[in-house]
Amino acid sequence: MTNDNRTFEARLDKLAEVAVRVGLGAVKGQEVVMTAPLDAVPLARRITHHAYKAGATIVTILYTDDATTLERFATASDESFDKATAWLYDGMAAAFRSGAARLAIVGENPSLLAGQDPAKVARANRARSAAYRPALDLIARSAINWTIVSAATPAWARTVFPDLPEAEAVARLWDAIFAASRVDTPDPIEGWAEHNRALAVRTGILNEKRYAALRFTGPGTDLEVGLCDGHRWAGGAGKAENGITYNANIPTEEVFTTPHRARVNGHVAATKPLSYQGTLIQDIRVRFEGGAIVEAHASSGEDVLRKVLEIDEGSCRLGEVALVPHASPISLSGLLFFNTLYDENAASHIALGQAYAKTVEGGGEMTPEQQIAAGINSSLIHIDWMIGSGEVDVDGVRQDGSVEPVMRKGAWV
Amino acid sequence: MTNDNRTFEARLDKLAEVAVRVGLGAVKGQEVVMTAPLDAVPLARRITHHAYKAGATIVTILYTDDATTLERFATASDESFDKATAWLYDGMAAAFRSGAARLAIVGENPSLLAGQDPAKVARANRARSAAYRPALDLIARSAINWTIVSAATPAWARTVFPDLPEAEAVARLWDAIFAASRVDTPDPIEGWAEHNRALAVRTGILNEKRYAALRFTGPGTDLEVGLCDGHRWAGGAGKAENGITYNANIPTEEVFTTPHRARVNGHVAATKPLSYQGTLIQDIRVRFEGGAIVEAHASSGEDVLRKVLEIDEGSCRLGEVALVPHASPISLSGLLFFNTLYDENAASHIALGQAYAKTVEGGGEMTPEQQIAAGINSSLIHIDWMIGSGEVDVDGVRQDGSVEPVMRKGAWV
Ligand SMILES: [Zn+2]
Ligand SMILES: [Zn+2]
Ligand SMILES: [Zn+2]
Ligand SMILES: [Zn+2]
Repeated sequence: MTNDNRTFEARLDKLAEVAVRVGLGAVKGQEVVMTAPLDAVPLARRITHHAYKAGATIVTILYTDDATTLERFATASDESFDKATAWLYDGMAAAFRSGAARLAIVGENPSLLAGQDPAKVARANRARSAAYRPALDLIARSAINWTIVSAATPAWARTVFPDLPEAEAVARLWDAIFAASRVDTPDPIEGWAEHNRALAVRTGILNEKRYAALRFTGPGTDLEVGLCDGHRWAGGAGKAENGITYNANIPTEEVFTTPHRARVNGHVAATKPLSYQGTLIQDIRVRFEGGAIVEAHASSGEDVLRKVLEIDEGSCRLGEVALVPHASPISLSGLLFFNTLYDENAASHIALGQAYAKTVEGGGEMTPEQQIAAGINSSLIHIDWMIGSGEVDVDGVRQDGSVEPVMRKGAWV
Repeated sequence: MTNDNRTFEARLDKLAEVAVRVGLGAVKGQEVVMTAPLDAVPLARRITHHAYKAGATIVTILYTDDATTLERFATASDESFDKATAWLYDGMAAAFRSGAARLAIVGENPSLLAGQDPAKVARANRARSAAYRPALDLIARSAINWTIVSAATPAWARTVFPDLPEAEAVARLWDAIFAASRVDTPDPIEGWAEHNRALAVRTGILNEKRYAALRFTGPGTDLEVGLCDGHRWAGGAGKAENGITYNANIPTEEVFTTPHRARVNGHVAATKPLSYQGTLIQDIRVRFEGGAIVEAHASSGEDVLRKVLEIDEGSCRLGEVALVPHASPISLSGLLFFNTLYDENAASHIALGQAYAKTVEGGGEMTPEQQIAAGINSSLIHIDWMIGSGEVDVDGVRQDGSVEPVMRKGAWV
């Protein structure tokens, strides 16, 4: 499963090319603002190459370092945890407003902050979320082309392959990333074009159906998820306000839309553990009434789960529902990644918290009050949470209440 | 000359402590904005530790990467070279205005851009200088506490020790950095306090003299450098506008003041090669008339030197004159560092270009026009340039034209 250096370098280069040409779509005349973990330097450098090759003016890499993050929690004074680097996030927002594209390499240690004071973690996250909001709003409404891609860092690889020696774990995780990102095919760019066409066919079919709701049934699950009136299904390539067609996630397998924040009822059992801020929440079982979670259990991490549900008025309601076939390449790998970019593309899922207004007709132009009235949820958080598997069926509920199958045992009907 | 790991780690930690406690002076309640080469990660992490320990709220490290800089020159389109990341420099200026301290780790490859198109290098530098100006102005007028410290990177170490294997070169360069930064003494913090006291005694003596000019004589050199009326000598610790006492350079051996931009006459021969933007300029000999260089020669890099002198009206005039004893610890190392932070603290020097207005009484409050009228030079550049050695004498010229010795053969009289 490990690869000789030449092959690895070639595949890494292909991943970088996919990140730029498929993920960002085009960068000619644009700055590129990249964030990356220090362990992702080789990928960041190859992405820099492909961005300049595609005509980027300046590529800036902002590196994050788990060691200095831990140093803060170990050493900083208490007042630190209500602060954030507003100047840096404002600077990123200014870059986006002046036309920069945004690329994020992710590969964090999923349990980096597991041993830290949860109150400090929550305060630091809240301060960061508030400071990052202006930049995030530009990304969330697709003002610019943006993408997220993963790098196999040692800490992440150890979590996915706890029984393997580190070097082998890293190599195995790279193999999984390359495969899921369609880098191992003879023509990755054409492979992505084909994949985007298939996702567009699927969203086209679902958009014609105009279902009132989706119903999930399976072991421990009988859940009806009402959809917003005028909801639109999205998936694969999208178009940013700057006119550039891009893929926000590399890889991506989901089609998704906006559930109605007050029309979710029934109970559901998670099909994978959820890694949230370094805490593993296992065997989640919750019950919804009128859109809100009214009962929540977990075999571990139940306290953290309850805290999440209390963050704000929207954090116990749904902001996304997404369908992913159980036979998706990431799912077939059989791996649990503890990384949302991967796990959410391995199973149908719902997300607690903030909704995408763009997947409701006219949603982007509504005031916040109009969005709530239309059923579009609002929250500081957006946490994807896997409820699909090879044992889960999905039905579409028509406006007249009649029902038809959408997925059987995790496969499209 | 190499050190076992434990000793190296302990000395690196001491250097980090000196950078924070002596360099920045105090950081309680401040953000710290750090820039560092990727090869300086271990030092950046230790500095982060000491900054948090001293009460910093958030430490942000902006890493630079020689590889991506070269990638830009190798691959980017022509339009790239007139662009700069204004959003990032504006963000840094915003951080300084909101009270952040500034720490720079330097250790660049002195000849990184030697093989690149000089026109592109000049354009990129000009764009960067213009974008960085608001942040630099805050640093130049000491609005905040700031400091520069060095890390021994492989590329720099290879330049200083071209005949040694890389690992040994890096270890030797670290030894030189630790020694020059007073890290190897039993109590570095007290050692710095004592050194700052000695520099204050020296500036006190020179300030009482109120010389009209300094005269440098030695092999190839007979130069009179007129000083501004109301000039002040500075050196070692200074006080920022935010009230914090800090040391802008670790190490520092110089005392310096502001020459009069129109009162420099005679000829001078450089005593060390000058590394400018990756070009080595050797055996510089120039002649001044009325403050301006009217004749310039070099045995190599003469074209680049001439280009520097033509950058703007102030780039062929002096902005700084500094005295450093030939017996300074850095000078005694016998090494040529190709790094201004080190070489300028090994020999008396002059600087082409921008002057420090603060070393003239009332200079900081003058308009740009008033500064020029007072003889305070202005330019986009500031290039320190070594003219002292064990063979150079310095005399002080009193207001009445009489003369007294200041240094003999590079030593204080
Ligand atoms: Zn999703
Ligand atoms: Zn989501
Ligand atoms: Zn100097
Ligand atoms: Zn200088």
